[in-house]
Amino acid sequence: MYRPEIKLLDCSIRDGGLINKWQFSDEFVRKNYRLLSAAGVDYIELGYKASRDQFDPKEYGKWRFCFDDEVKRVIDGVESQSKLSCMVDIGRVDDDDILSKADSPFDMLRVACYAHQITKAIDLGNLILDRGYELSINIMAVSTNSEREIDEALTDLSKTDFPLVYVVDSFGNMYCEDITALVKKYMTALPGKTIGVHTHNNRQLAFSNTIQGIINGANFVDSSVYGIGRGPGNCCTELLLSFLQNPKYELRPVLQLIQEEYMPLREKIEWGYIIPYMITGILNEHPRVAIAQRKTPEKDDYVKFWDTLTTAEIDDQSE
Amino acid sequence: MYRPEIKLLDCSIRDGGLINKWQFSDEFVRKNYRLLSAAGVDYIELGYKASRDQFDPKEYGKWRFCFDDEVKRVIDGVESQSKLSCMVDIGRVDDDDILSKADSPFDMLRVACYAHQITKAIDLGNLILDRGYELSINIMAVSTNSEREIDEALTDLSKTDFPLVYVVDSFGNMYCEDITALVKKYMTALPGKTIGVHTHNNRQLAFSNTIQGIINGANFVDSSVYGIGRGPGNCCTELLLSFLQNPKYELRPVLQLIQEEYMPLREKIEWGYIIPYMITGILNEHPRVAIAQRKTPEKDDYVKFWDTLTTAEIDDQSE
Repeated sequence: MYRPEIKLLDCSIRDGGLINKWQFSDEFVRKNYRLLSAAGVDYIELGYKASRDQFDPKEYGKWRFCFDDEVKRVIDGVESQSKLSCMVDIGRVDDDDILSKADSPFDMLRVACYAHQITKAIDLGNLILDRGYELSINIMAVSTNSEREIDEALTDLSKTDFPLVYVVDSFGNMYCEDITALVKKYMTALPGKTIGVHTHNNRQLAFSNTIQGIINGANFVDSSVYGIGRGPGNCCTELLLSFLQNPKYELRPVLQLIQEEYMPLREKIEWGYIIPYMITGILNEHPRVAIAQRKTPEKDDYVKFWDTLTTAEIDDQSE
Repeated sequence: MYRPEIKLLDCSIRDGGLINKWQFSDEFVRKNYRLLSAAGVDYIELGYKASRDQFDPKEYGKWRFCFDDEVKRVIDGVESQSKLSCMVDIGRVDDDDILSKADSPFDMLRVACYAHQITKAIDLGNLILDRGYELSINIMAVSTNSEREIDEALTDLSKTDFPLVYVVDSFGNMYCEDITALVKKYMTALPGKTIGVHTHNNRQLAFSNTIQGIINGANFVDSSVYGIGRGPGNCCTELLLSFLQNPKYELRPVLQLIQEEYMPLREKIEWGYIIPYMITGILNEHPRVAIAQRKTPEKDDYVKFWDTLTTAEIDDQSE
């Protein structure tokens, strides 16, 4: 389908960095930037902005920090019509880390928060708007929130002039009906704002849920190359490019990126349809338990993993 | 969701056999039968029925033929409430190969045909019903048929007393809207008949399209363990079991099957989300071109594969 309002944001470096602590080489990121630009992707997200005192730069790559001058240097000279975005977590960034837009390569900053952090997110969002950036608010893990919690966060957001709010399926638990209900809820509560969708692929529903969000009226969609991202990963950029019939999009540069960079990378770090992440998706749990299990010799003992998580569930119910 | 009418058919051996010429050991098939039965799967499809003169038994394993006595021997003594099914292709089976139901372990025979073969399929279907079996008609590759061709086939089927007709997305090309349109069309044209859905996973839409079919009223759904099947494979049995809330279904035996059998098997033969199959899905082409390319040294040259197929397309358009 072609709806010119729809914007595609590729978050490969940002979400993929959750697997390898953002240890991507400058060459890798520059090539991503070049080929995603050639593909016509609207926004390219290069990482998280964070303070140097929050993470050890010896352990974390530069895309965990996204210092403006370093980012500028890496992408310098590449022809691109794409905008750049960067994510910020509540509590992991100082006000001083956010330069004025005039001094930054970034066009958009996206605030990731939980529903209970919405007041802090609104404060940070106002600062980001004041400094001249585009803004989105991404409320994470809403599949674990009550209706009341979501409604309260949306009521607070409705009083802002923020342009863009995301439905995020952090745990890859949602079915199309859940996406429909949430996108409709967000659109009703936030008239005039654009709604975005960010999905995870635990149950092989990331692409279809993104399509469902678009059918329901979402006009901002996230994806990553070959689905790279923590655990099961995300909706695939190549799939979305094939679905969105915007004539400016080109699939070919992303195919090149996959064959030259992502297939070799996939040999070194893992993501995708992996049964423990499918299980945490079914059970609506954070993938951290599956990530921990994948680092043990029992990483492919799916039955034991299932038994551990579902037995714990029975114990919980007996309290 | 739980709708008691919905029947789940696992076609792992039948569709998976398209990858390895049905060279599955008796032990492998017996273990599939045991654990899929323990999972509560309603129908287990063990292969194709075919005449000995159609395929060389030295090249093709026994699940390409499914001779009744051999099948009986392999599953003998396994406790099971599941029914057995077997697929037949038009023109590859003799009437004599289809024994009376009383002499066969199979409960259901499924006729795979193209829309233009519907008259032959109806003849074969009548013979199957006469010999005492349950029956389904699976019209393949309807994404390449015109509305008129589909309507004519459905009109012919509407005059039969066949109980079950499948919507089949052979090329993994369909979006949820296509599934909705086809399931509604089949239900309207075939009042009183059950509609089934068989999907392929080229674009990671097999599971979501199966859910969509269920939402639209389909009550028979196909899947395979870990999605095994030619090329991209099918909707995953483990995913469907987690979606269908029938209390008789158990996910755990399928997890065991995946970890003990399908993960090692996946090291030897390939299926799943593989870019050339994604490309044939986008282009609504038979996967055979991708299968051929996967056997060459250029198997991971996705750009060249894309260029070859899309350049040919331009040539076609100029005719």
